[in-house]
Amino acid sequence: MFVQKEQLFIEFQKIDWEDKGGGVRRKVMAYGDQLMAVYAEFKRGAVGALHHHPHLQITYIESGSLTVHIGAETKMLRAGDFYYISADVIHGVEAHEDSVLIDFFTPMREDFIPAT
Amino acid sequence: MFVQKEQLFIEFQKIDWEDKGGGVRRKVMAYGDQLMAVYAEFKRGAVGALHHHPHLQITYIESGSLTVHIGAETKMLRAGDFYYISADVIHGVEAHEDSVLIDFFTPMREDFIPAT
Repeated sequence: MFVQKEQLFIEFQKIDWEDKGGGVRRKVMAYGDQLMAVYAEFKRGAVGALHHHPHLQITYIESGSLTVHIGAETKMLRAGDFYYISADVIHGVEAHEDSVLIDFFTPMREDFIPAT
Repeated sequence: MFVQKEQLFIEFQKIDWEDKGGGVRRKVMAYGDQLMAVYAEFKRGAVGALHHHPHLQITYIESGSLTVHIGAETKMLRAGDFYYISADVIHGVEAHEDSVLIDFFTPMREDFIPAT
């Protein structure tokens, strides 16, 4: 099942995984026009290639550890840490162990919603 | 230490707790004008009293279990689940065990920033 727009309560087990390849899979867990939450698993060694988007992003590292690149800065972060990405800033990650990231975007990412 | 506005990398251990009383404490972990992330601990039995605010909110339940009230709806949720609160909708929680919530707000909450 895919989450509905502005769904109030979203149970993890009821949302289907989307396999993105390369050891990455995700669930879009909640969204409205102005905010979207995405649960993403990165297997050890998985890479989130450098990219950018006009959406402001904050990520919570739920578990694991990663090297995080944001613009010209690079830092190793661990479970419990957060990172902040302004609109259109290039960023990427490399997972040093199995890791879970909770990504929040404002506004929501239309490209993460299946075509209907 | 309090997190700086638009700080890129935020390590959990470097941010101070704010004790809110009643078994609740929090750390504001990241923010810019349009988005704020808050890490909140609720001890077993702690209550987030019914309230509302103009900020859209999505919460990730990192651990524990809670009864969540949103408008006229009530649901018991557990670690891994999310909930979505539209602007100005009344909401509250009761923690059934020690729980951690990761709250995201858009726009950011000025009332969560210490006066300078």
